[in-house]
Amino acid sequence: MAQIQFVLGGARSGKSAHAEGLAEAAGRNPIYIATAEIFDQEMESRIELHRERRGPHWQLVEAPLDLPEALARADGPDSVILIDCLSVWITNVLVHEQDTDAACRALVDMLADCSGHVILVASETGLGIIPENKLSRQFRDANGRLNQAVAAVANEVFFVAAGIALRIKPQQ
Amino acid sequence: MAQIQFVLGGARSGKSAHAEGLAEAAGRNPIYIATAEIFDQEMESRIELHRERRGPHWQLVEAPLDLPEALARADGPDSVILIDCLSVWITNVLVHEQDTDAACRALVDMLADCSGHVILVASETGLGIIPENKLSRQFRDANGRLNQAVAAVANEVFFVAAGIALRIKPQQ
Amino acid sequence: MAQIQFVLGGARSGKSAHAEGLAEAAGRNPIYIATAEIFDQEMESRIELHRERRGPHWQLVEAPLDLPEALARADGPDSVILIDCLSVWITNVLVHEQDTDAACRALVDMLADCSGHVILVASETGLGIIPENKLSRQFRDANGRLNQAVAAVANEVFFVAAGIALRIKPQQ
Repeated sequence: MAQIQFVLGGARSGKSAHAEGLAEAAGRNPIYIATAEIFDQEMESRIELHRERRGPHWQLVEAPLDLPEALARADGPDSVILIDCLSVWITNVLVHEQDTDAACRALVDMLADCSGHVILVASETGLGIIPENKLSRQFRDANGRLNQAVAAVANEVFFVAAGIALRIKPQQ
Repeated sequence: MAQIQFVLGGARSGKSAHAEGLAEAAGRNPIYIATAEIFDQEMESRIELHRERRGPHWQLVEAPLDLPEALARADGPDSVILIDCLSVWITNVLVHEQDTDAACRALVDMLADCSGHVILVASETGLGIIPENKLSRQFRDANGRLNQAVAAVANEVFFVAAGIALRIKPQQ
Repeated sequence: MAQIQFVLGGARSGKSAHAEGLAEAAGRNPIYIATAEIFDQEMESRIELHRERRGPHWQLVEAPLDLPEALARADGPDSVILIDCLSVWITNVLVHEQDTDAACRALVDMLADCSGHVILVASETGLGIIPENKLSRQFRDANGRLNQAVAAVANEVFFVAAGIALRIKPQQ
């Protein structure tokens, strides 16, 4: 029986650390699906920090664009998969001028077919003022729609602020 | 006895859909008070999507500036009114160089006088970094103050993220 | 026994008013540690508004940079101290090209040594889109890390939206 946990939060909210804790609690050899493409040194040092925190028993898969396919390959009845993060993935989809709605549907369909335990991390990016440039607004819209779609199929949804996870689905 | 519900959330958070669900649950012929002025095609297609989702049994009132007056006209003991959204209204007030504090007071006074069921939608816009331009900071301040004033008179307040509504007033 | 309360929220969320209420409830002569440096009239009028709301029984200490030291001087077994706000302080540290991680550690170490009641206010700034300029990203990262570190040592953490405080630590 598949288990889907979705961890939502702001930048530097501790959402990745919370998701890694869920993965460590769920099984022995978690698979980490990274969606970031490494463009510059700022990003490289961030990714390196995440990697050190996780430790060597994690398996790493990189899927900047083909996330549904990578998830399909990694999934199995005993698998524990952490996807970090969806917002970077949908940015990649947008920047490569692919259809974000189709990508969102493909991911959600794949999640419905999964047999293992999947933990997904995403940024909430809709709580500031309206961005001035159109691409940022497109990203914000696509990201918000993706977050809604994933939250709808997840068994558990957490909102993380200042390192504290509040479970918003199911509530109480 | 008036009932005031306030739905707060980020962009693409599902706040409008949640508010529409509350309105559908509250009565047969809800009145939709739209505050958006249609400037461009991007906005027009968004509004069209909202309209299709609501269906033909909704009555539409447009009130980009005279929201308290429109609310007064629509209100009655059996009315169900959905105002979507306050943040666009306060933006219009600001852009038309009217007094945002006076507008806020007029709306809150009108809400206190209502006899029907009113559901209000607003964006939370204060959780990003400080905007660089002064008008954006003025908007953010006016919007935050308006949200506090409306939440203070509301019977119920919901915070929506990723399509999930968390009731923050009353809590539990 | 020290008591640490941490109030997190967006701009114009009502977080300062909530924190002032906690301080008023906690003791007779609260000490207000202000971190803002007054640069312009916009900021001055904001600070004046806060001052009027608090009233004359508050003692004012200004600590734009040396916050851990100011906290050490003000602390005592019967003291009630309100620090407003951490996000402005970490901005000052960043702008003065000091080490934000070291500053964060110094504050958290000092909090661990406090014997009185300390209430800290901070902005959550990570829930919008990624800022375009590097200094804003550095601020957002430093602020998020500081918020996590303070929340970890706090007895109580509140998230404030639209004037409504949700206690996220401890939950329920």
